[in-house]
Amino acid sequence: MTFVKDFKWNKGMQVQELVDYYQDLGFQSVELAKAASTIVKMKKASSKIFLTFTSNMVTSGLRGFFAQLIRLKMADVIVTTVGAIEEDIMKAKGEKFIIGDFKSDDIALYEKGINRVGNLFITNESYANFENLIKPILERLYQKKKRWSTSEMLYEIGLIMNDENSILRQASINNVSIFCPAITDGAFGFHLFMFQQDHQDFIVDVVQDFKNILLSTNQDEIKGVIALGGSISKHHAIFSCLLNGGLDYAVYMTTARESSGSMSGATTNEAKSWGKIKDDSDAVTVIGDVTINFPIAMISALEKLSREGLIKDE
Amino acid sequence: MTFVKDFKWNKGMQVQELVDYYQDLGFQSVELAKAASTIVKMKKASSKIFLTFTSNMVTSGLRGFFAQLIRLKMADVIVTTVGAIEEDIMKAKGEKFIIGDFKSDDIALYEKGINRVGNLFITNESYANFENLIKPILERLYQKKKRWSTSEMLYEIGLIMNDENSILRQASINNVSIFCPAITDGAFGFHLFMFQQDHQDFIVDVVQDFKNILLSTNQDEIKGVIALGGSISKHHAIFSCLLNGGLDYAVYMTTARESSGSMSGATTNEAKSWGKIKDDSDAVTVIGDVTINFPIAMISALEKLSREGLIKDE
Amino acid sequence: MTFVKDFKWNKGMQVQELVDYYQDLGFQSVELAKAASTIVKMKKASSKIFLTFTSNMVTSGLRGFFAQLIRLKMADVIVTTVGAIEEDIMKAKGEKFIIGDFKSDDIALYEKGINRVGNLFITNESYANFENLIKPILERLYQKKKRWSTSEMLYEIGLIMNDENSILRQASINNVSIFCPAITDGAFGFHLFMFQQDHQDFIVDVVQDFKNILLSTNQDEIKGVIALGGSISKHHAIFSCLLNGGLDYAVYMTTARESSGSMSGATTNEAKSWGKIKDDSDAVTVIGDVTINFPIAMISALEKLSREGLIKDE
Amino acid sequence: MTFVKDFKWNKGMQVQELVDYYQDLGFQSVELAKAASTIVKMKKASSKIFLTFTSNMVTSGLRGFFAQLIRLKMADVIVTTVGAIEEDIMKAKGEKFIIGDFKSDDIALYEKGINRVGNLFITNESYANFENLIKPILERLYQKKKRWSTSEMLYEIGLIMNDENSILRQASINNVSIFCPAITDGAFGFHLFMFQQDHQDFIVDVVQDFKNILLSTNQDEIKGVIALGGSISKHHAIFSCLLNGGLDYAVYMTTARESSGSMSGATTNEAKSWGKIKDDSDAVTVIGDVTINFPIAMISALEKLSREGLIKDE
Repeated sequence: MTFVKDFKWNKGMQVQELVDYYQDLGFQSVELAKAASTIVKMKKASSKIFLTFTSNMVTSGLRGFFAQLIRLKMADVIVTTVGAIEEDIMKAKGEKFIIGDFKSDDIALYEKGINRVGNLFITNESYANFENLIKPILERLYQKKKRWSTSEMLYEIGLIMNDENSILRQASINNVSIFCPAITDGAFGFHLFMFQQDHQDFIVDVVQDFKNILLSTNQDEIKGVIALGGSISKHHAIFSCLLNGGLDYAVYMTTARESSGSMSGATTNEAKSWGKIKDDSDAVTVIGDVTINFPIAMISALEKLSREGLIKDE
Repeated sequence: MTFVKDFKWNKGMQVQELVDYYQDLGFQSVELAKAASTIVKMKKASSKIFLTFTSNMVTSGLRGFFAQLIRLKMADVIVTTVGAIEEDIMKAKGEKFIIGDFKSDDIALYEKGINRVGNLFITNESYANFENLIKPILERLYQKKKRWSTSEMLYEIGLIMNDENSILRQASINNVSIFCPAITDGAFGFHLFMFQQDHQDFIVDVVQDFKNILLSTNQDEIKGVIALGGSISKHHAIFSCLLNGGLDYAVYMTTARESSGSMSGATTNEAKSWGKIKDDSDAVTVIGDVTINFPIAMISALEKLSREGLIKDE
Repeated sequence: MTFVKDFKWNKGMQVQELVDYYQDLGFQSVELAKAASTIVKMKKASSKIFLTFTSNMVTSGLRGFFAQLIRLKMADVIVTTVGAIEEDIMKAKGEKFIIGDFKSDDIALYEKGINRVGNLFITNESYANFENLIKPILERLYQKKKRWSTSEMLYEIGLIMNDENSILRQASINNVSIFCPAITDGAFGFHLFMFQQDHQDFIVDVVQDFKNILLSTNQDEIKGVIALGGSISKHHAIFSCLLNGGLDYAVYMTTARESSGSMSGATTNEAKSWGKIKDDSDAVTVIGDVTINFPIAMISALEKLSREGLIKDE
Repeated sequence: MTFVKDFKWNKGMQVQELVDYYQDLGFQSVELAKAASTIVKMKKASSKIFLTFTSNMVTSGLRGFFAQLIRLKMADVIVTTVGAIEEDIMKAKGEKFIIGDFKSDDIALYEKGINRVGNLFITNESYANFENLIKPILERLYQKKKRWSTSEMLYEIGLIMNDENSILRQASINNVSIFCPAITDGAFGFHLFMFQQDHQDFIVDVVQDFKNILLSTNQDEIKGVIALGGSISKHHAIFSCLLNGGLDYAVYMTTARESSGSMSGATTNEAKSWGKIKDDSDAVTVIGDVTINFPIAMISALEKLSREGLIKDE
C-alpha cells in the first residue's frame, strides 16, 4: 500500500525529483509518474517503441524534442499527421513560428497573413516558402521512380534536411520510419495534387505504407506505444500493433475524454477489449496538455535510463 | 438586445419548440439554437454543404440519420474516417452493434470477442463478416480498373449496398461524394493491403481524391460545413474549402477544447485567421456530445425547412 | 441485449420521441435517456427528491423551469449557491438578463457596467436594485427574530416574491426547503454583513441549517438526487443523504471530469464507495451542458409521468 | 515577437530550466510559464496573496506544499472548502491516505470501509478518528466563548495542531487567516450540528467571516490571487477583492471549461467584466490538473524569488 506524501520544494529541485514526488501526490500527477516509469520499463524491455503525435505538437517546440528522442533511440516508429511533416520541413528551412495568444483578433490576423494554431502563429510566408521547397523535391523524387509509399518519400526528404532538430532528418539517419496515413490532408497534399496534374503516372501508394507499418514490427517483438494526442496517428499505431499481437506497454497522453466514444478519448482500457493492448500490459492514460506533461514524463525516464547507461547522455 | 427567458415545459412539446426556447436560455443551449438557424440559412442560401463526422458516430445510431440527410439533400459532400465506412457496410449487411457500458470489464470483453467503443460494442464476428464481404468487392473493382481514387471506390461500393439506411448507398444514388483521406487506417486498409499482395498493380490513388474534393466545389459557390467531432474529416473539409475561397457558413460540434491547440478543439474563430471560414460568415461552435446535440439542431432545421417546402417531408 | 438503432427524423417529432431514440443511439444520448427513466422511477417510487444546481443555471432560463418543477412536485428539497438566490430575487423583481457572447470584450463590458457569466450578461443596475430590495427585507426579518437559519430566511423571502416563475416563491408556497450552505459568498453576504454592522445581535445560524437538511428526510424514505453541476450544492445534498442511509436514485449532470478528483467531476460510482449512493441504486452521470441536457431528460420524464397521471398537466 | 523554440533535454535538468523552456514551447506550457512569472511579479510587488483551493488538493500531497508556502510567506489569506479543513486535521493527527485507482470497484471499496476521491482513498477509520478529535476541540472553544466566526475557530484549531506540514498550524503561527464559507458542508458540519444540539447558544457566525475577509485587505493594497480549482473558494476570494477595488494579479488553474458559464470554468477575462480583476492586471488561466501544474509553476517562482533573496531558502 502506498500512501499520499506531503510535497515540499527544496532549492534547485530537478525534474526527476519532482516526478518522484508525483508518484505519491495524487490525481493526474500519479498517472504522470506511472507514465514515466512505463517508458523506462518499455525501454528496458527492448520494446519496439511507436511514438505518435498530432501536427500541433510539431507547431510547438516539442518538435526538437521528438528529433532528440529519435537520436536517443527512444522511438523506433513514428506516426503522425501531415501538418507535422510540413511544419518540420518549414522549421528545418528556417521558418520561425510565433508565440501568440489564444484570445487573438482572428480577422485582424487574417488580414496580416497570420494563421493561428491555439496560441501559436504561422505566417502565410512560411507556407509560400514551403511551396517553393517542395516542388523541386517532388521533381527529384519523380526522377527516381514513379510510385512511392509515403514512408519512402519521407525518408528521402529527411535525407536532404540539414537541421539536427528535424524529425525527418533524425528519422532518416536513424532508420526510423515515419508513417502518415493521411498524407494528402494539408498543403503537402495540395502540392502532390499539383504535381500529379502534370505527371499522371506519379503515384503515392498508401496501401504500400500499410504493409510497411505492419512489417515494422512482428508478433515476437515486445511493443510499446507513446501516443500523444488522439486522431489517426494514435489509431494507426495501435491498430498495426493489434495485428501483430497487441502492445505490451502503452502511454496515452490526451486532453480528450472517453465520454463521447471518440478515438482521441479512448482509454488504454478500451484498447484492451480490442486486443490492441495486451491484458497484462503496463498501460496508463494521462489527462492534460501534452506540452506540459510529455516533457516531464520523458525527462524523468531519460534521467533514469541515463543513470543506468541505457541511453547516451546529452 | 435579447433577454434570457424562463423556460417552461408544456405537454407534448416538440423538439422544434424546445430549440425555440434554447435561443433565450443560456450557455450551450444558445449556441445550439444558433447552430440550428445557421443550418437553415446554409440551406436557404443553396450552399454546397460539407458534412463531416468521425467513425464513432457511425458506430452510433446517427448512421441512419446521416443517410436520411443525404436523401433529403442536406449534405453534398461527406468527409469521414475509414471506421465509418467499415461500419456502414457491416450494418448494411445486417451486423448489429450492442448498447453496452462505459464501465465494462475490458479484459472479459476481449475474451468474449467483443470490442468496445465507449458504451457501444462491436463483435469480432462483425469484423469477420466484413472480411468475407470486402474481398469479392475488391476483386470486382479490380476487374473494372487498376487505379482507383477512394471516392470512386466508395461510390461503387455504395451502389451494391441495398439498405436505405446506408450512408454509402444514399451517397451513391444521390451523387454525393464520400472522402476518406486515411482510407488505410483500419480493417479496410488491411484488406486493401492483402489484396495488393496478390495484385501489385492495384492502386488506391489518394492524390486523385484531393483533386476530386477540390473540384467538388468552387470559388463562386456558397459553401457551408457541418463538422461533427474533429480529426482529419473536419480538417479535410475546411482545408479544401479554404482553397476555394473559404466557408460562408460553419457549424462545429465537438467535445474537444481549444486549450491544447488541436484541430479537434480548434474554433470557428481560429479558422477565420486561416481564411478557412470567411470573416463575415455565420459560424458557431457547440460544445458537447454529438449524439445528443446534432439530432436536436438538425431536427429543428429540418422542421423549419419542411415548413417552407425546402425539403421533402418524411 | 439492446442494439444500436438507426435514428430518423419524422415531421413534428416530440422531445419524448427523441429521447426514445436516444435509448438506442449511443454515447451520451444513451446516458441521457437513462437519466430520463431514472427520474421517472424516482418519482414513481415516491422518493424524496433533492434538486441541486449552481447559480449559473439560475442566470440562465432554467430558473423558470426549476420553479415549475417545484410546482409539479418534482423537487422536495433544493440545494444551491447564493448567486442563485440573488438572481432569482432580481428576476422576480423584473430585472432582465441579456443574451451576450462568450467572446466579448470584457474591458468594454466593465466600462459599460455589464458583468459577464459565460454568454449571459447581468448589469450593475440589477445589483443596485437588488441592494435596495434586500435591505428592507432584512429589516423585516430582524423585527421578527434575531437568529435565523438560512432556509428559514429564504422561506420568508419566498413568501413576499410575487412571481410564479420564482424558485423562492414556489418553494415557499409548496413547502420545499432551500438550502444554501455558503449563504455569504456573494452580494447577499455583503448585505448581511452591512446589516450586522448595525445589528450585532443579528445571526445567520448555518449549523441550524445542517439540522434542517438532515431532518428533511430520514433513513426510511426512498431518496433521489438530481444534481446539476457540481460544487457544494451537489455535495451538500449527497452528504446529507449519506447520513440518512444513502440515495436510492441519482442523476448527475455535469461538464466536469473525474480525472482531477474534484467533487464537480465525481461520478455516481465514486459516490457508492462513500455510501452516498446505495450500491444497488439506479445511478447515471450525463456529461454535457445542463442547459441542453436537463430540459430534454426532464421533459421526457414529465411526459411519461403525465401520461400516467402522476403529475398535473401544464 | 517571441518565437517557438525547439525543446531539448539535458542531463540533470532542473524544474526551473524546464519552465524557462515552457515560455517558448506552446499551448498550455506557455500559459504555465506565464503563471510562474505572474507569481514572481505578485510577490515582488508585495501583494497581499490570496491562495484558494478545493478539498481534493488537500486529499493530495499538495497539502504539505500549501503549509510550506504559508511558512515562506507566499500566501496571506487562504480560502478553501471544509473537506480541506477536515483532512488537514486528520493528517496532522497521523491519518494516512492511500494511493488508489480511478477504476476501482466502488462497491467493494464501500464494503471495506474505504472512500474514494479520484485515485485516492480515505478510510472510514480516519473519519471516526476525526470525530474523536473534533468533539473535545469544540468543547474547549465553547468554554472560551459562545459565538465564533469560522476563521477564528480555525485559528484556534491550528494552534493545537503539532505538525509542521499542517496548513492550519502554519496559518495560525504565521497570522494567515483561513476562510471557509461553507463550513457546514462536511463531517465538520455534522459535528457542529451534534454539538449545537446540546449547546443551543453555540453559534458559528459566518457573517462575521465576511467582515473578516473584507478587512483582510483594502483598496490601497496590491492584491493577487492564486486560485486552484473552482467552486466557492475561488469565488469568495475574488468577490472579496472586487469589493476592495479588484485584483492586480491573478493566476487561475483549473480543468473546468468556460463553455457552461460556471464559476469553476470562468476565465480571468470574464472576471475583468465584473471588476474582480483590474483591466490592466497580469492575469493568466492554465488549463490542466493542479497536482501537476501548480508545483511546477510555484517551484519556478520560488527558485527565482530565492535567487533574489525574496524568500528564505529551504
